[in-house]
Amino acid sequence: MGGVVGLFSRKKIIKEILDYYRKIWAIGHALNLLHWDTETYMPEKGVVERSSAVAELSVLAQKLITDEKFVKLVEKAAELKDLNDYEKGLIRVLERTIRVAKKLPPRHVHEFAKVTQEAVVVWRNAKKANNYDLFKPYLKKIIELNREKAEYLGYKEHPYDALLDLYEEGMTTREVEEVFRVLEPGVKKILERVLEEKTYPQTHPLEEVEYNIRAMKRVNERVLRILGYPFNRARLDESAHPFTIHMGIFDVRITTRYEGKDFKRSLLGTVHEFGHALYQLQIDKRFSMTPLTEITSLGLHESQSRFWENIIGRSMGFVETIYPILAKSLRFIKNYSPNDIYLYFNTVKPSLIRTEADEVTYNLHIILRFKLEKLMITGEVKADELPELWNQEMERLLGIKPKTYSEGVLQDIHWSMGSIGYFPTYSLGTILAAQIKYHAEKQLGNIDEIARERRFKQVREYLREKIHRWGSVYPPKELLQRSFGETINPEYFIKYLEEKYLQKQF
Amino acid sequence: MGGVVGLFSRKKIIKEILDYYRKIWAIGHALNLLHWDTETYMPEKGVVERSSAVAELSVLAQKLITDEKFVKLVEKAAELKDLNDYEKGLIRVLERTIRVAKKLPPRHVHEFAKVTQEAVVVWRNAKKANNYDLFKPYLKKIIELNREKAEYLGYKEHPYDALLDLYEEGMTTREVEEVFRVLEPGVKKILERVLEEKTYPQTHPLEEVEYNIRAMKRVNERVLRILGYPFNRARLDESAHPFTIHMGIFDVRITTRYEGKDFKRSLLGTVHEFGHALYQLQIDKRFSMTPLTEITSLGLHESQSRFWENIIGRSMGFVETIYPILAKSLRFIKNYSPNDIYLYFNTVKPSLIRTEADEVTYNLHIILRFKLEKLMITGEVKADELPELWNQEMERLLGIKPKTYSEGVLQDIHWSMGSIGYFPTYSLGTILAAQIKYHAEKQLGNIDEIARERRFKQVREYLREKIHRWGSVYPPKELLQRSFGETINPEYFIKYLEEKYLQKQF
Repeated sequence: MGGVVGLFSRKKIIKEILDYYRKIWAIGHALNLLHWDTETYMPEKGVVERSSAVAELSVLAQKLITDEKFVKLVEKAAELKDLNDYEKGLIRVLERTIRVAKKLPPRHVHEFAKVTQEAVVVWRNAKKANNYDLFKPYLKKIIELNREKAEYLGYKEHPYDALLDLYEEGMTTREVEEVFRVLEPGVKKILERVLEEKTYPQTHPLEEVEYNIRAMKRVNERVLRILGYPFNRARLDESAHPFTIHMGIFDVRITTRYEGKDFKRSLLGTVHEFGHALYQLQIDKRFSMTPLTEITSLGLHESQSRFWENIIGRSMGFVETIYPILAKSLRFIKNYSPNDIYLYFNTVKPSLIRTEADEVTYNLHIILRFKLEKLMITGEVKADELPELWNQEMERLLGIKPKTYSEGVLQDIHWSMGSIGYFPTYSLGTILAAQIKYHAEKQLGNIDEIARERRFKQVREYLREKIHRWGSVYPPKELLQRSFGETINPEYFIKYLEEKYLQKQF
Repeated sequence: MGGVVGLFSRKKIIKEILDYYRKIWAIGHALNLLHWDTETYMPEKGVVERSSAVAELSVLAQKLITDEKFVKLVEKAAELKDLNDYEKGLIRVLERTIRVAKKLPPRHVHEFAKVTQEAVVVWRNAKKANNYDLFKPYLKKIIELNREKAEYLGYKEHPYDALLDLYEEGMTTREVEEVFRVLEPGVKKILERVLEEKTYPQTHPLEEVEYNIRAMKRVNERVLRILGYPFNRARLDESAHPFTIHMGIFDVRITTRYEGKDFKRSLLGTVHEFGHALYQLQIDKRFSMTPLTEITSLGLHESQSRFWENIIGRSMGFVETIYPILAKSLRFIKNYSPNDIYLYFNTVKPSLIRTEADEVTYNLHIILRFKLEKLMITGEVKADELPELWNQEMERLLGIKPKTYSEGVLQDIHWSMGSIGYFPTYSLGTILAAQIKYHAEKQLGNIDEIARERRFKQVREYLREKIHRWGSVYPPKELLQRSFGETINPEYFIKYLEEKYLQKQF
């Protein structure tokens, strides 16, 4: 009899948790829409009221998460035996969220939300005006708030661990350092050889060719349709800084930008966000409105965007597949062969802007930010010294130096949003994308061929099965272990770069 | 000393109330954005998660409003002496909200939100498919929920009073009946004479002329700029059913629609929503994020939209002012004189669709709905009998009969949104618009001249001073009394129609 009663009470407790959680989910749903709207359609003057609303709702969500009854319910559930993997995942995610929410005082959450909402607007103006002083007081405050956050959250070795773990569960500063210790020399060696042996071009005339924005929108939409983007559950909009956001499994939105020239930026940016969106869209539908729809880690998320952007989007097969779409909408394409487009998609050149960086140099930008963030958090570097240190590191890693703040320390939105500890996940994702390619090809065959033959459904299904459907049932390391029999290994990425970039292409 | 202590504690209590209220405001801000998004940009499949989120947030807001500590604080504030008008208004609005929230059980609020969120989608499909049976079960449920609501809220004479008061504070069913007792015969007499004496045309060739949607968008935007719509605090978007919504005083949004022909529908619809938006935009900025930004009544709100749509938008002076804008963007305009456009804007003809109705026949559509709603709420009429009764009343009031459900009982979104008791406020607003015209002209001179001379700023300032800036400081009757020395009087509207429509124009 004990077993039956146990099952009954287990189901009852889990149901109670999920029912209660739906309130928290609803606030998250609203906050995500508020964020999307702030970046896309909100009238300029709406920002003050908007940031107050976001701050109030953030505190409200935190209160609900730390509600004593709820916390006890989750604690009770954690002690239950015979939990299945879904239930275990659910409890794990909630315990993580509760821990963070309980450790951060409401005052801190409120101030963090309010400061960062305003800082995003200030950062945008500062970047436009190339005026670091405008943004500096906000950055100072944001560093301070993040240092406080690390102390509140606690850590074993390095205060940065506390922040990193928010984005990449179970990953430590030391582990990232180990990955980067392989990555940095490996990438630098390859970069030197590519530049010396001129296997790929550094620039391409298409970078200067202007496009019609309306035509480009059509191209992006058509490419998304070919990849399998479900427009009845998803959107494509414009924003200054492209992003993906989900209101649920049935409403996922991506944005891109149209700068009017250098069309690969808009196109591959869209394909990148498609990769993020597909993750959210392919989570098991039964997880709708539960904590399991929160992604398991940003690194894994980025592995999906990079997989579609780099592994597929920058392949010759993909270029051949989309060539007719490009040719139909963009008049200038007729002057270029698919091979020209391939080289244009894969130029390799040390550049100042992370989001414009190629596959080879990209991670060097992250290594720089990782180093600076660690120093900010320990207090070894002050906001005043950041621009200079930024420039020094750019010189050391990439051999070039920004002339303006806008193309240096002001280039990214992340710090203004309060996100410190976030950048390393970009590199983790880039590495994982190469690792997933290796495993996927064992099962599906050559990715280049797949892209050429438009067999994207096979890729979507592979990724759904191995990663997406699981939502956050397993922590990232465990999911990787289960699906691929190993955790992150930068050697795959080095090997991928060597194979692709050290063979002469032009 | 007593006075000083009194002042101090008064300020403290009011501050405490406003601080707490900001949480409720933030949920309202989010709910309004969710609503806007549902009607404009949400992907189709997002509706289920969206309606859950709206339901959860509605319950959450209700819980906050009925929180015992907060209720006691408001009660304490209500007993304070020496409250100024702002503070009194604040307490009045909160007491009303608390009363409603306390009387409606959370289960009811939750179900109401969930059912209506879904019903809107079903209604849309039912209308498209001309299938009343699709919508009927939802309508039944919505009538039932509204009857329950009336019982929960309580009323003196008629259950409909309880619902009406939600939209029009202090107005009773009996008072509306009295207004309509003057309105119905007055309007019918004028309508008969217009049709008999052919003072205005019944149709106009421009109704069939197609326009380019992009060009029409430009026209609407230019007209809004001339009227003084502040695009840094406001937006114009598209939706199936045009509406105005505010995220705050600094973010107000209107929508319009583009059907591809009969351009006055899009243009005057836009001007109508502009009137609503201007009310929200001109509320005293100090009321931002307080209960005083909630509008004082829907009737007053509608008086603003009708003032701009009818009194200004359908005047000869306005036609002359916008003629160059029309001529610039819409090629076909060159075939029509300003006088043609004036007649096109002012055709008078009994028609099936409320939103297409002219100034003369419009209120007859409302009288029909008011009658049906009263019968629904008392239970004298069932959902099954509605289409037939609708058709009978159409014949009695307007002499015509719908052939489809879509142009009959299914035409309006309101019931699907759960709004019963809302329609009468459209007529109250239409009447008040004529009344306000009379008073405004005493101060500003002839409105037609003002429109011709683009002196819209004067009109905006007049309305700001008399109505907008006050937000909901005063209940509607009191505000009318203070600003115009009288409350609603349908004779103004009858007189306005007589003066405009009984003089031969063509």
